[in-house]
Amino acid sequence: MKDQFYQYIQDLQDTITHKLEEVDGEAKFKQDFWKRPEGGGGRTRVIENGNVFEKGGVNISAVHGALPKTMQQYFGVDDADFFACGLSLVLHPKNPMVPTVHANWRYFEMYNKEGTIVDQWFGGGQDLTPYYLFEEDGKHFHQICKTACDKHHTDFYSNYKKKCDEYFWNAHRNEERGLGGLFFDYCKKTDEMSMQDWYNFVTEVGDSFLSAYVPIVEKRKNSTYTKEQRDWQEIRRGRYVEFNLVHDKGTLFGLKTNGRIESILMSLPPHVQWVYDHHPEVGSEEEKLLKVLANPIDWVS
Amino acid sequence: MKDQFYQYIQDLQDTITHKLEEVDGEAKFKQDFWKRPEGGGGRTRVIENGNVFEKGGVNISAVHGALPKTMQQYFGVDDADFFACGLSLVLHPKNPMVPTVHANWRYFEMYNKEGTIVDQWFGGGQDLTPYYLFEEDGKHFHQICKTACDKHHTDFYSNYKKKCDEYFWNAHRNEERGLGGLFFDYCKKTDEMSMQDWYNFVTEVGDSFLSAYVPIVEKRKNSTYTKEQRDWQEIRRGRYVEFNLVHDKGTLFGLKTNGRIESILMSLPPHVQWVYDHHPEVGSEEEKLLKVLANPIDWVS
Repeated sequence: MKDQFYQYIQDLQDTITHKLEEVDGEAKFKQDFWKRPEGGGGRTRVIENGNVFEKGGVNISAVHGALPKTMQQYFGVDDADFFACGLSLVLHPKNPMVPTVHANWRYFEMYNKEGTIVDQWFGGGQDLTPYYLFEEDGKHFHQICKTACDKHHTDFYSNYKKKCDEYFWNAHRNEERGLGGLFFDYCKKTDEMSMQDWYNFVTEVGDSFLSAYVPIVEKRKNSTYTKEQRDWQEIRRGRYVEFNLVHDKGTLFGLKTNGRIESILMSLPPHVQWVYDHHPEVGSEEEKLLKVLANPIDWVS
Repeated sequence: MKDQFYQYIQDLQDTITHKLEEVDGEAKFKQDFWKRPEGGGGRTRVIENGNVFEKGGVNISAVHGALPKTMQQYFGVDDADFFACGLSLVLHPKNPMVPTVHANWRYFEMYNKEGTIVDQWFGGGQDLTPYYLFEEDGKHFHQICKTACDKHHTDFYSNYKKKCDEYFWNAHRNEERGLGGLFFDYCKKTDEMSMQDWYNFVTEVGDSFLSAYVPIVEKRKNSTYTKEQRDWQEIRRGRYVEFNLVHDKGTLFGLKTNGRIESILMSLPPHVQWVYDHHPEVGSEEEKLLKVLANPIDWVS
């Protein structure tokens, strides 16, 4: 399973970066290989100062070895070996009418001292963070998520949409990071779902990413915008930074387990503003977005 | 003691904001009062888009009531009542040749159910975060810190300089947030120091703040700078954000105990950049700063 999934994310990284370069039309991804001293490493691909993408990363990694102490505590286990691989992406477009997107698909194995697998699971998801609310974009993104889920289980979309809203709740701001999407974790073998079934589900979601996001980018990337709208985007990006550095388990985990900092923090936006006590005008487009972030809605039924 | 110190920080807030407005010559502090539902509140003063100060806050607060659960765990105590007051300030100048500064002076009392004080202590400090290294500025700032300390105890400067370097270590970046200064906490009654002695020490440091910082601002505020130097400042401000959101106990504490978000996060800089895997040129002024941040030095002997 680990070879099968690692091959999948390598291919998916190629597919996604090729397509995004085509959409951007100008910038190319820069590739960095890195090694983890304790075992494994990654292939980081970052795009900057593009025509469409101001900054973004589409990174894969596969790491293994003794489970670090902090992760033992986190999982509530004793000494164990582990293998983990995944693809993580974040894209920050230049144009404030184009939403930021995040996605991640990952697989984890834990072994006893004899090297036998004692636990294994998939996790992942994808979510959209716009700066201006176009309801049709939210509907499109969620509809693609739902279609991918529905092929595997009738409960998956509603369950994982809900988990996504819970996970990306920026608690100290009392608002969602964005419009949500899917979030799932600890997807383990059950009577209903074999690990191969989970593989089929997770890769179905991975395969859906470009069709969930690219049509929105194509529709919005040539929109005109004002300096005020760009300022609003940079202020909202501040909330993205706050979520990632204060609440995001993946980011904190990476920072506290000696991950490759530049690959982890590629998720942070290129230009960001913090303005004291900023509130958009009543009835404005900016306020319309905040209302949806304060009370997540159902995008598809 | 609590009335005496709260009166002190009210007066100090006035003194500092008046002086900074004079130095800025353009912008004025905007004042907000806020109330804590569980008891107490604060007076926040924020300056934005000034001639010298791009953003900054000089805030006081005095809060009291039942010690929140998270603070009980933090202090390792059971149910108790508390009183805490303090002044916190952060200033982000526009010109990259002028350093950012942070300072904080605070007092804490804990009570048993009969309302008797069972514990009380002072804490605080002040530290400098430049974007370009002017050694004479570092020496000046630390000399003022040392002079204030030496009036009270010959060990204070070296002890609190060291604690400052330890506290502001941005662990995931393997570097200091800045050039340090002073950091002290849990300053409690001992055979040598009464609470009044500690009050005299902490207020000595508070009184020294303007003479530690303002001469540096005056010397640098009219320096010319390039767009590249401004970019460097914004990238370094990113590290400031990372420290405050990932490591700073005060910030995380505020966020997790339902403090007033806008007063806590006034510390975040106005314009910030994150550039993937940025490294200054070998031998550049930017690299010179990084070397000192990687290995804090003694500024005064």
